[in-house]
Amino acid sequence: MATPAITADAINTVVSELYPGASGMCVEVGADYAVAACDVDPHMVRPGGFVSGPTQFAIVDAALWYVTFVALGRIEPMAMTSELSMRFLRPAQGRRIFSRARLEAVSRRSVVATAHVWCDDRTEKITATAQGTYAIPLPR
Amino acid sequence: MATPAITADAINTVVSELYPGASGMCVEVGADYAVAACDVDPHMVRPGGFVSGPTQFAIVDAALWYVTFVALGRIEPMAMTSELSMRFLRPAQGRRIFSRARLEAVSRRSVVATAHVWCDDRTEKITATAQGTYAIPLPR
Amino acid sequence: MATPAITADAINTVVSELYPGASGMCVEVGADYAVAACDVDPHMVRPGGFVSGPTQFAIVDAALWYVTFVALGRIEPMAMTSELSMRFLRPAQGRRIFSRARLEAVSRRSVVATAHVWCDDRTEKITATAQGTYAIPLPR
Amino acid sequence: MATPAITADAINTVVSELYPGASGMCVEVGADYAVAACDVDPHMVRPGGFVSGPTQFAIVDAALWYVTFVALGRIEPMAMTSELSMRFLRPAQGRRIFSRARLEAVSRRSVVATAHVWCDDRTEKITATAQGTYAIPLPR
Repeated sequence: MATPAITADAINTVVSELYPGASGMCVEVGADYAVAACDVDPHMVRPGGFVSGPTQFAIVDAALWYVTFVALGRIEPMAMTSELSMRFLRPAQGRRIFSRARLEAVSRRSVVATAHVWCDDRTEKITATAQGTYAIPLPR
Repeated sequence: MATPAITADAINTVVSELYPGASGMCVEVGADYAVAACDVDPHMVRPGGFVSGPTQFAIVDAALWYVTFVALGRIEPMAMTSELSMRFLRPAQGRRIFSRARLEAVSRRSVVATAHVWCDDRTEKITATAQGTYAIPLPR
Repeated sequence: MATPAITADAINTVVSELYPGASGMCVEVGADYAVAACDVDPHMVRPGGFVSGPTQFAIVDAALWYVTFVALGRIEPMAMTSELSMRFLRPAQGRRIFSRARLEAVSRRSVVATAHVWCDDRTEKITATAQGTYAIPLPR
Repeated sequence: MATPAITADAINTVVSELYPGASGMCVEVGADYAVAACDVDPHMVRPGGFVSGPTQFAIVDAALWYVTFVALGRIEPMAMTSELSMRFLRPAQGRRIFSRARLEAVSRRSVVATAHVWCDDRTEKITATAQGTYAIPLPR
């Protein structure tokens, strides 16, 4: 596949300007995927020392947003999560949490992707798996 | 239906001890439902002034957790989200965000519920709808 | 709410012409809901005597299709399932299977609804619960 | 990974005895995947000539069932779909429909997998993508 037209740096620059409160940043993009990462702060940890479900959702949502930019070939901040379903597979523990989203389909109105979540360098120990749809703004 | 054996106050006391970082609190429980609420902080707001998807996921997840306690008749902090699917229906704007989860089914190993999300007093303008499953810890 | 502009009879007439292979028929519509029903044939039954998951999916899909017609105020056969998530709650046994779908939201491009499934007259013993989205064809 | 302990033939033999009404058969298994296939009959086709959503759900459900057997290393017919979410990506047209399910996680009580659907030999043109959970019967 071709080199994506946009880079992780370009995504981070735009997102950090528009959305200073965003947890997570883009650490890698490819022709059909994007990887998001986020440091685990104490407020993200649940009883037992586990990274909370909403924190895992947030990193998936970020990865899906980034892969939507990859799919469109442009940074489209008004692309919105339309629906997302997640399965939590095992407890998540670590200092840094990652999600990699892979494109499944792109149409005029939406982007569908599958995403995995893991902690630190344990890419084979996925803690959650998800699928979701981002809606692309329609021309008025 | 009968009065639930546990109260919103009891839930908030236990949760705030175990999980000081939790956003959201329980504001109401009934025989087959629970309502969670959370003040909208600036870091929860996305471009356009909208409450972020992860924030809406978090309040749904809290409401499902509380309604799991209602279903079990006890506060079981190790009940964990097993899976959750959300649909985002319209932009969410407001000072306070709410989710009401209603029980669908309770079995030996899981609790299933449907949840709505809204802002402020606009209970009829739901911004997201979700269904999910909480896993009940199995005896060893 | 107002009386729906379309009736169960009108839906059944159009659907049976366009789609003779459809299992299920519309048995009731209201301002924000539709009910689908289907006789349970032997090929729909799994080991143990239970109505299969795909059969339950099919009746939910039919109910969501019908409630999309209700939402639009017209019969739009090219409305297509965009996504659907189902939870199976208990074994389904009976002679006839039903699904009631209730509208959650209607936008320019989609209809979101929640649906329950039950057998025979056991409306309180839901065997499955689902949420899904129907995509409305966009003007070219 | 190791060779799976069970074969497609073994699965088909058991399933066809227990569940003569099953559409679909297992055409391939590997250490972490299973492929199901089914001939498209006229009653599976919707207006426009498209394979219906429930038919696509059925083939996904079969693939998930088979991959659950792979994960367990035994044919466990009472494994039941717990939840399944599907996204429909493009119209499905063809003579034969396939689904490949890949294992995501296996625990004491459930198996999670992601599945793709395609028609004929168009393995790259997936018509639907899904994730779901099969519940493993608990010892009494």
